[in-house]
Amino acid sequence: MKLATLKDGSRDGTLAVVSHDLSKMAPASAVARTLQIALEKWNDAVPRLEQLFDAVNAGTADGIRDYDPEALESPLPRTYQFIDGSAYLNHVELFRKARGAQLTPKLREDPLMYQAVSDGFLRPTGAIPVADPELGIDMEAEVGVIVDDVPMGVSSDAAAQYIKLFVLINDVSLRTLIPEELNSGLGYFHGKPRSSLSPVAVTPDELGSAWDGRKVHLDMLVKLNQAPIGMPNCGVDMDFDFTQLISHAAMTRPLCAGTLIGSGAISNRDPGTGVACLAELRIVQQIDEGKQKTSFMQYGDRTTIEMFDANNQSVFGAIDQEVIPA
Amino acid sequence: MKLATLKDGSRDGTLAVVSHDLSKMAPASAVARTLQIALEKWNDAVPRLEQLFDAVNAGTADGIRDYDPEALESPLPRTYQFIDGSAYLNHVELFRKARGAQLTPKLREDPLMYQAVSDGFLRPTGAIPVADPELGIDMEAEVGVIVDDVPMGVSSDAAAQYIKLFVLINDVSLRTLIPEELNSGLGYFHGKPRSSLSPVAVTPDELGSAWDGRKVHLDMLVKLNQAPIGMPNCGVDMDFDFTQLISHAAMTRPLCAGTLIGSGAISNRDPGTGVACLAELRIVQQIDEGKQKTSFMQYGDRTTIEMFDANNQSVFGAIDQEVIPA
Repeated sequence: MKLATLKDGSRDGTLAVVSHDLSKMAPASAVARTLQIALEKWNDAVPRLEQLFDAVNAGTADGIRDYDPEALESPLPRTYQFIDGSAYLNHVELFRKARGAQLTPKLREDPLMYQAVSDGFLRPTGAIPVADPELGIDMEAEVGVIVDDVPMGVSSDAAAQYIKLFVLINDVSLRTLIPEELNSGLGYFHGKPRSSLSPVAVTPDELGSAWDGRKVHLDMLVKLNQAPIGMPNCGVDMDFDFTQLISHAAMTRPLCAGTLIGSGAISNRDPGTGVACLAELRIVQQIDEGKQKTSFMQYGDRTTIEMFDANNQSVFGAIDQEVIPA
Repeated sequence: MKLATLKDGSRDGTLAVVSHDLSKMAPASAVARTLQIALEKWNDAVPRLEQLFDAVNAGTADGIRDYDPEALESPLPRTYQFIDGSAYLNHVELFRKARGAQLTPKLREDPLMYQAVSDGFLRPTGAIPVADPELGIDMEAEVGVIVDDVPMGVSSDAAAQYIKLFVLINDVSLRTLIPEELNSGLGYFHGKPRSSLSPVAVTPDELGSAWDGRKVHLDMLVKLNQAPIGMPNCGVDMDFDFTQLISHAAMTRPLCAGTLIGSGAISNRDPGTGVACLAELRIVQQIDEGKQKTSFMQYGDRTTIEMFDANNQSVFGAIDQEVIPA
C-alpha cells in the first residue's frame, strides 16, 4: 500500500491512499482519520486500507482524484518520536579522515543515534524556512521506517515485524551550528531543525524483493537545482540495518507507535555514486582537491530527493523543496 | 487551574480538573477529551475549564470524586516534544570541578539544551522499569513548562505568554551510560529513558507571586526512600529563566503546542539546600570527602519529588516512584 496525508487545515491532516503508480489518490478517513490513528490500530486498519488501495488502483474508490503532491502534508505531519541513526560509516569516516582521525572500534559496534525533532515535519514540496542564509543550509537524503509499538529490549531478529511503513527523509541541516553542538557533548539541536518526509509512505510489500527484511536495495537520486549530486544505493555499505537500528533504539525503553527511525545520510564507498548531502561533497572535495568548492544552499536553491524501483518508477514521490527566508 | 489526566486505557487518557487543594477531581472531557487537545485550542478551552475548576473547588462538578494519584497518568501521557535544558550552572560547575575543569564562557551565554524522549511519560506514581540495576539509576527533579504554539525566533521578552502550564519532572537517568554518549558528541540517548511528570499540571496563576513571569520561586523537596536529599529553590541560582529557555529552543524552528521544556536538575549554590539528583550528591561527596559514598538507586528504591507553596501546601502532588526490573 501507499499512504499519504491530505492537507485539510488541521494539524494532522486526513489519511489518504495513493495508487501504486502514483497517479491517483483517495481519502481514507472512513478507515482512520489520520495516519497516527491507523498506526495505533494497524492490524484492524490494514484490511480496510488494502480494500481501498485496490479500489484506488482500479480507479473506483470514493473521492478518487489525480495524485497531487501539492495537496499533501508529510505522511506524518508530526509524530511523537523521530530517532535518527547514522548507519553509513563511510559518511562518518570521510568526516574523520578530513581532520586526520579514524573510526573508533566502538563506532563499528553500535550505531550512532540521536533524538531528533518530531513535533512538525515540513511539507514534502514545501519551503525550507531559514532565518539566516549563512547557516550552512544542507539536505540529507535518508530512508526511514515507521514502526508500531516496539517493546523495550527487542532483538534485531524480532524487530522487522514492527516496521509498518517506509518513507524518505530530508534531514535538513544547518552545518555552521553543528560543530559547537557536537563539542558540547549534548548533540544536535539547532543544527537539525524540522525535516520533511516524502509525499508517500509505503508498506514493506510495495518494495518487493528490494526489501530483504533488513535493508532497502534501491537507488536514491539527490539533486541540487535539478542537477544530480548523487544516486547512492540505500542497501550498499549500510553498516547497521533497519532491524539493528530499531533494536538499538529500544535498548532502555519501548518505542511508541508512529516512531520514525532514520538511516542517516546514505553514503556508498564507491565515489561514482555521489553524495546524499552537500557536507559530504565538500569533504570529498577537501580530501581530493584540498578545497571545499561547492557552497551550501542559499535562498532560492532547491533540493529534490527521490527513490526509484527496478523499473525506474518513483516509489515515494519526490521531496522537492526550496530554501526561503524564515 | 489544576489539570490532570485520568487513566482510561487509552494512550492519552481523559482530561480532568483537580481542586486547588488537591482534594477532589472531575473529568473535563466535555471541554476537551485530552490535555493535548485542550492545549491546541487553549483560548477556547480555558473559560470552560475555569468554570469546571470553580465547580470542583465548590464540590459541585459532575463526576466529582476524591483526588487519587493512583488513578492518574502523567498530565501529558505523551507529547510531540520534550526539550530539556540545563539552567542551573552550579550543577554543571560541580561536575566540571570534580574533574578539574571550569565552565567555558559559552556555557554562561547560552543554555545547554537537548531533545529528550517524549513518546511516553511514566505514571507519576508508577514504577521506573530498568533492565539492569547497575546502570546508575538516578532521579533528577526539575520544573517544566508546557507551551502552546511558539513561533520561530521568539524573543525571551515575548516568550512568557506561551507558557500555559507548569509541571514537575523526574528526568530519570541511567548514569553509567551517559559518559560515552556525551563523548560521542551526539548526546543523551539511552542514558535518559522515559521521564515522569507530577500528577497535576498548574496554570501560572496557581503559583501566585511565586511566578514572577520568568522563574518559579518555590522549594522542591526530593527524597530517596522517604529521607530528604535536598530542598533547593527553583528560583535560586537559575542562570537561564524559562523565557530564555523557550527563546533559545525556538531559535531555528517553531515549537508545537504541547511542547514540554524542562529546567534541568535544580541546583542551588548553598550546599545546605541539598541536591535534586544522586549524581550531584556523589560529586559533592567526591569534592568534599574524596569518595562517592551514596549509591545510585537499586530495585526497590523509591524517589519522591514534590514542590510546596508558601503555606507548605503541595502544588503539583507528588511524583513517587519505585525502581523495578524491566
